[in-house]
Amino acid sequence: MFRSRIEALRAVMREKQWDAVVITGGDPHGSEYPAPRWKQVEWLSGFTGEAGDLVITLDHAGLWTDSRYFIQAVEQLRGSGVELHKTRVPEEIPIPRWLSMQDWEDEEVRVAIDGKCHSLAATEALQDAFTTPVRIVDVPDLLSLFWKDRPAIPSKPVITLGDDLTGSPRSEKIAAIRDFLVERECDAILLTALDDIAWTLNIRGGDVEYNPVTLSYLLVTMGQVLWFVRKEGFSRPDDDTAGTFEELEKDGIAIMDYAEAEMVLSGISDAADDFSRLYIDPSTLNYNLSTVIFSNPSIERTVRGSSPVAPMKAVKNATEISLLREAHLDDGLAMERFLFWLERKIEVDTLSEAEAAFRLDSIRADIPGFMGNSFETISAYGKNAALPHYVTPASGGALLQEQGLYLVDSGGQYLSGTTDITRTVPLGPCTALEKEDYTLVLKGHIDLAMAVFPEGTPGCRIDALAREPLWRRMRNFGHGTGHGVGFFLCVHEGPQDVRQNLNPTPLRSGMVISDEPGIYREGHHGIRHENLLLCKELGTNEFGTWLGFETLTLCHIDTSAIIPDLLTGDEIDWLNAYNERVFRELGPRLPAQISTWLRAKTRPI
Amino acid sequence: MFRSRIEALRAVMREKQWDAVVITGGDPHGSEYPAPRWKQVEWLSGFTGEAGDLVITLDHAGLWTDSRYFIQAVEQLRGSGVELHKTRVPEEIPIPRWLSMQDWEDEEVRVAIDGKCHSLAATEALQDAFTTPVRIVDVPDLLSLFWKDRPAIPSKPVITLGDDLTGSPRSEKIAAIRDFLVERECDAILLTALDDIAWTLNIRGGDVEYNPVTLSYLLVTMGQVLWFVRKEGFSRPDDDTAGTFEELEKDGIAIMDYAEAEMVLSGISDAADDFSRLYIDPSTLNYNLSTVIFSNPSIERTVRGSSPVAPMKAVKNATEISLLREAHLDDGLAMERFLFWLERKIEVDTLSEAEAAFRLDSIRADIPGFMGNSFETISAYGKNAALPHYVTPASGGALLQEQGLYLVDSGGQYLSGTTDITRTVPLGPCTALEKEDYTLVLKGHIDLAMAVFPEGTPGCRIDALAREPLWRRMRNFGHGTGHGVGFFLCVHEGPQDVRQNLNPTPLRSGMVISDEPGIYREGHHGIRHENLLLCKELGTNEFGTWLGFETLTLCHIDTSAIIPDLLTGDEIDWLNAYNERVFRELGPRLPAQISTWLRAKTRPI
Repeated sequence: MFRSRIEALRAVMREKQWDAVVITGGDPHGSEYPAPRWKQVEWLSGFTGEAGDLVITLDHAGLWTDSRYFIQAVEQLRGSGVELHKTRVPEEIPIPRWLSMQDWEDEEVRVAIDGKCHSLAATEALQDAFTTPVRIVDVPDLLSLFWKDRPAIPSKPVITLGDDLTGSPRSEKIAAIRDFLVERECDAILLTALDDIAWTLNIRGGDVEYNPVTLSYLLVTMGQVLWFVRKEGFSRPDDDTAGTFEELEKDGIAIMDYAEAEMVLSGISDAADDFSRLYIDPSTLNYNLSTVIFSNPSIERTVRGSSPVAPMKAVKNATEISLLREAHLDDGLAMERFLFWLERKIEVDTLSEAEAAFRLDSIRADIPGFMGNSFETISAYGKNAALPHYVTPASGGALLQEQGLYLVDSGGQYLSGTTDITRTVPLGPCTALEKEDYTLVLKGHIDLAMAVFPEGTPGCRIDALAREPLWRRMRNFGHGTGHGVGFFLCVHEGPQDVRQNLNPTPLRSGMVISDEPGIYREGHHGIRHENLLLCKELGTNEFGTWLGFETLTLCHIDTSAIIPDLLTGDEIDWLNAYNERVFRELGPRLPAQISTWLRAKTRPI
Repeated sequence: MFRSRIEALRAVMREKQWDAVVITGGDPHGSEYPAPRWKQVEWLSGFTGEAGDLVITLDHAGLWTDSRYFIQAVEQLRGSGVELHKTRVPEEIPIPRWLSMQDWEDEEVRVAIDGKCHSLAATEALQDAFTTPVRIVDVPDLLSLFWKDRPAIPSKPVITLGDDLTGSPRSEKIAAIRDFLVERECDAILLTALDDIAWTLNIRGGDVEYNPVTLSYLLVTMGQVLWFVRKEGFSRPDDDTAGTFEELEKDGIAIMDYAEAEMVLSGISDAADDFSRLYIDPSTLNYNLSTVIFSNPSIERTVRGSSPVAPMKAVKNATEISLLREAHLDDGLAMERFLFWLERKIEVDTLSEAEAAFRLDSIRADIPGFMGNSFETISAYGKNAALPHYVTPASGGALLQEQGLYLVDSGGQYLSGTTDITRTVPLGPCTALEKEDYTLVLKGHIDLAMAVFPEGTPGCRIDALAREPLWRRMRNFGHGTGHGVGFFLCVHEGPQDVRQNLNPTPLRSGMVISDEPGIYREGHHGIRHENLLLCKELGTNEFGTWLGFETLTLCHIDTSAIIPDLLTGDEIDWLNAYNERVFRELGPRLPAQISTWLRAKTRPI
């Protein structure tokens, strides 16, 4: 199937004289999870990983993806004729360089892309990689030529969040954006990242799976706010998108159709007041729309930079922090109910990975204010957990046994915030290596959670604290240690992170990051311990201003597989205090039987 | 005195209509320690720190320097009218930005510099900081207008090192440089950093204090090697610089006069074969010489990048590593002799900081192959040690007491390598805070020394390992944790380091770095524990290739001020194993009395 789709594409390539076609896994807004319409990589190759780009030439088809998906990619690409190219490894050859290194026969290399699904930055990087002539052929909706039953552009209901949930009215956020524009000597900004728009307008939608965002563009000028959003297609009885639009219009925001963005940005429509210096973020602005902007004669200058909204959104305000604590209390209660059920269940019956995931999702769904999962629940037993981003089948999957390790990575979207938690649960006897790995990963988790660091420190400078216990024994994990987390928004958000890349963004008080070291032994077991941490100011002294973390996630850490000798006194103290806090906060809110069980689970080691 | 010098400069500024003069602490080659001729900042302001730049306008005089020198600068600038501007702090305003922020009356701001003492990169950064018109007025040897007894350009004897000391003949090094040129599509490179030149030619000189280098430029084309060096002024009976020149000429290297570099690079002289694509390093090429290069019509293109020699030089070969181990054995013997003497001496007599430094320097000077100190010995007692770069007076200084902490930071240049060691020695009873600080700094030192990390890891990613024990208690130090060290060359060399800046250079097997966390409490005490570490490959497994460190420095770490409860079992094991190794390697080579004393000093805790 995939071979024939690729061959159909090649037939068009020959006809149109395209030397290569590059297909990204992204949507027109650089979203992390694209809607089904933009799952082009999957449609063409069968690869379902969350990150991957395809390059098709007349004699090669390649998928570029990172270590999270190496094992999965090899399996899913089998028979497709598509080869795996590894990214984020020392020997990586990125797509632009790979393309520029091929022996092309033509004088000018013609690379076709769907310019709506390529960012301006990525497209320029592609052009810059060539020292010989190259021509980017922009074919909007390229795959629609072949993809007959291609899903439509989504337009799900849109709600607004009150100030009691956001702690900051949209007028305040727009004012902050305008302050930024003044500082950067611009008179307009085009917001293209969907979570930036949702945060700014205090709206939430459902156009991207797991991310409560709405497909749209937002143009903020010094006197206007124009929201380009799909105005049609809302029909469900519980849908009050019309009410949402009214509320925004009352706040002075002009609602325009999604398709009108091109007209306004090209200068053809006069719906917007004049603006001449437009701020854009080339990492999320798509190439197709950028060419429209560059063709607008009244725009004197486009100023490039990263979105000013990302750092504003990353720092949670007092209202958000207080709600986040509530969300984690609810989420922790759900987790404990699940873990209690799990332990009882496997003592008397077999249980599949899918059943376990279904149970956990069901418990969460009962929580008031639950709006959906924050990503697809990973429920993985034994060797399946060695795939860091294992996709649990919709039904079935491995059967959990009363031995070894079970990993469950899940999270919820609540009106009160977003959660993300991983627990690795010993289901019975564990091997010495499982116990050692379990303890070392936990040691790294604790060391990061306990970290204290001076103001101005970026996450990459403390990432090693979570890794050194593994590194010391020549073990490691191939993913980042921590990512930012939105407030009832994307479970992965920037600009901060804790990982190997030298991202200079400092951690700031109010930011949320995950703390999730792991270890993955192909064919054997996988371990990850994940809590969300809130960055907090600890005080100022003669040495400067100090930051540290408060753990937001509340769910006990199983101590049965721990080798205490591998932990320091400080680490054991942290663990015992954490488990005690979990019991203190959750125990009284749980049924007696579960509370008693939790008391035993949280006994100090 | 300084006020009148600055006023004399201002008189010229008025006459020439210069709005500002920027004076750097550097020489025409970007050397770390300039020869006396280029100590312009000291001559004009009295500030003697190793890093500092001056800006003089008609109504302001400012010194820009980093936290190592804050205390010293305040003291030395008192009465000079020069204000301190802090660098490497969050609120830093670098010179280019500061200049661009001033209210200038003229339409075009005229900034005068001595273009020989400003790098091309720094000068361009200065220009780029202005959005309004700015004109750089290049006045070579600007200060010579006022500085009547200004020291001459140095020209000290030059020796060559045989292959038995370098492990790599100069022909091999020049071939490696040409390989680099081919790769970068260049046909010539101008080496401007003096240690790059010394390493390439296997020569050593004495033109820069503590750095055994020779003032010169080296032009390497595909067919020629031209060394521009001061050919005159060698007269001492033990000077065989003429022999050095002969040896190099036999190897096909053309010896030309230092002043001829301008002629050749401008294209006026035809001494060099034609070259059209010249590789330059804008961070060490001085601005004045760059303008000469840019005026050469036969140079089609200058390619900019960091010196290719720096990473070659940083990775020590097998010969160098084996010699380095010898150098550290000799250096350790000297240190132990000194510490034994120190302990005896203060039991019976008073002793000044200067006497102690003199004694240590004298013991080192007796070592065969000793060529000089690798930097000025810091001998600091009590609160003087709170200045990380305290300058011990030539005579006198504080008297050592039988209490508190004495810090000694010193190193030697040997034919077999360069050493750099700091020991903080408890001279008697210490306060609880002194002991805690002593132990925490040592804990950080040990944690970095024990670090294991994957191939490709830059030093900035493991810097936090040395700091976290302090950070955890909201303490810190304001300097880097580690710097590269040359082989009988500069005690500070790049491109690798271990510090807060996000330097992406990975640590590689064969690199040497210092491991020197510290803590400084103004008015009380200063502590630093420093060893040199050799980066080594530990092996490869399913998780990748692993690197770690071998400690090169051999000198016991005093255990009397340690609070053992603050150390983990692993840290105590490391400390005991290190002290045991020190005794095993040094004990048999020391006189019986010192050996017995060392046995007691290295008893396990």
